[in-house]
Amino acid sequence: MNPAVFVDALQNELQHIQYGQNPLELYEPIRYIMNLGGKRMRPLMTLMSAYLFTDDWQKAIRPALAVEVFHNFTLMHDDIMDQAPLRRGQPTVHEKWNHNIAILSGDVMLVNAYQLLLDVEADKLKRVMNRFTRTAAEVCEGQQLDMNFETRWDVTEAEYIEMIRLKTSVLLGYALELGGLIAGVDDETTRHLYEGGMNIGIGFQLKDDLLDVYGDPVKFGKQVGGDIIANKKTFLLIEALEKADGALREELNDWLNQAEFDKAEKVQAVTAIYDRLGIRQSTEERINNYFDHGFTNFDQIRADPDRKNLLIQFARQLVERES
Amino acid sequence: MNPAVFVDALQNELQHIQYGQNPLELYEPIRYIMNLGGKRMRPLMTLMSAYLFTDDWQKAIRPALAVEVFHNFTLMHDDIMDQAPLRRGQPTVHEKWNHNIAILSGDVMLVNAYQLLLDVEADKLKRVMNRFTRTAAEVCEGQQLDMNFETRWDVTEAEYIEMIRLKTSVLLGYALELGGLIAGVDDETTRHLYEGGMNIGIGFQLKDDLLDVYGDPVKFGKQVGGDIIANKKTFLLIEALEKADGALREELNDWLNQAEFDKAEKVQAVTAIYDRLGIRQSTEERINNYFDHGFTNFDQIRADPDRKNLLIQFARQLVERES
Repeated sequence: MNPAVFVDALQNELQHIQYGQNPLELYEPIRYIMNLGGKRMRPLMTLMSAYLFTDDWQKAIRPALAVEVFHNFTLMHDDIMDQAPLRRGQPTVHEKWNHNIAILSGDVMLVNAYQLLLDVEADKLKRVMNRFTRTAAEVCEGQQLDMNFETRWDVTEAEYIEMIRLKTSVLLGYALELGGLIAGVDDETTRHLYEGGMNIGIGFQLKDDLLDVYGDPVKFGKQVGGDIIANKKTFLLIEALEKADGALREELNDWLNQAEFDKAEKVQAVTAIYDRLGIRQSTEERINNYFDHGFTNFDQIRADPDRKNLLIQFARQLVERES
Repeated sequence: MNPAVFVDALQNELQHIQYGQNPLELYEPIRYIMNLGGKRMRPLMTLMSAYLFTDDWQKAIRPALAVEVFHNFTLMHDDIMDQAPLRRGQPTVHEKWNHNIAILSGDVMLVNAYQLLLDVEADKLKRVMNRFTRTAAEVCEGQQLDMNFETRWDVTEAEYIEMIRLKTSVLLGYALELGGLIAGVDDETTRHLYEGGMNIGIGFQLKDDLLDVYGDPVKFGKQVGGDIIANKKTFLLIEALEKADGALREELNDWLNQAEFDKAEKVQAVTAIYDRLGIRQSTEERINNYFDHGFTNFDQIRADPDRKNLLIQFARQLVERES
């Protein structure tokens, strides 16, 4: 099986989904944000996971897209909360329309996600819905923690990892679990799927933080050092704040408190502090740790080796990405 | 059976619901808005409906509260959109906390509503969820229409009624339908329940518009004429705009366009225009029409007469309310 088959199946269904018709102001923003693209990573994971256990992976297509619609709902509402002007290089919904429309379209997107999930077979519905509902609440909890952290300077590593686990990783875990639930696998297998997805997800998110500082400027695609310029509380900064003392701590605090500065100079100076504290190595270790855990979770899943290989290759791409 | 038994059962369960714990900022606003009170009309309707067909009406308690939590979620988000400072005499969530918290707490409330609904028996889940999801989308559609109407002066009666049907009445319909679905009644009966609730709901909402102008100031509890002062596009105003012509139309337009005016004078003048156009009578006719339809729907339901009488008495209170 070529993974492109899954991508095509998702694209095809995405073109046919009716989110709703009237009033237009409510449904047009849904079509807009869903058409901004993205890697469709989550629904792809659901299909690959279902295919591990069944030839009838097509029955997972609409539930898989429930996860994608839910993810895009969170983006629409997060963009309001973060006052973000752009999403994937295009105006965000609250900018293109207005705040009220972004709130209400987002609400109906969450309802749409449930609608798509209702496509699963009746005997599997309760578990699928229970787990989705728990996951959805956790994603909201993660977003609230993220907002809380903006005004705190004493966030610990453990708190930060719990925040990214809730905000982003549990949904990757659920995306894989869902494929198993639809295929009707046992509890132990769904647990391996969920934890595998979640661990890869945490590693993936930490790698995001790492690449922002240590990414190859040519391959990275965004400005390297953006997080440093914005004082964004990443894993690297939290680790540095925990490790630095004496003159180094003072120097770091100075940069964090400077209202006006030369951007390149700040990036260079803070990166140098990270270097002296060994932040790159310790972050890489942590990332590899989560990735290793994830692959160990996958090892424990009993499935056809070729099919499992598809999933593992996909996860490897996430691990080895440089942008 | 005394209806107070249903009220007590709901209150008791409401005190025990765990919406969630961490982070506190996310879940505290849910407890706050749920504790502002209200008549708990919707969940009460679900319990009375279930009791029509089964002694085991207690199994409908948590699903009934799903409807109440959903309703309060819509209030939390509508209050942001309407920039409302107060809800039941207390600060709204976005005023007491902030906009972002009101958005995100609302989101997790919608998820909580689904969680409560998952309490229904597995073999009934798909229908219950399908109908809830359709209803939830319609409520959002109604809210969007309501916002659209704010800037339009050519809203027709039919459009207005469709808006209130979606925004408020379908949820009353669903509240009754849900009791039947949980009790496992046939499609014809659920249709009578749904349509009965919806028709009573439309009449109820139109009566709201009527009482605002023609309510007894002593019994009404709010300032009579509030809608006239605010130029609120009620059924009465839409009907008046459709019927008035010549000098009367000019006089009405003058009052609508006046930026500064004596409130009592405007209320008196616009009410006099309504009187001359026979708006009170035609609105009352329309209300009675919807109520009659609703009671005809109830007539067609086969159930124990004493139990049916409970529901009918409850609906009568809604019909005959003066505040």
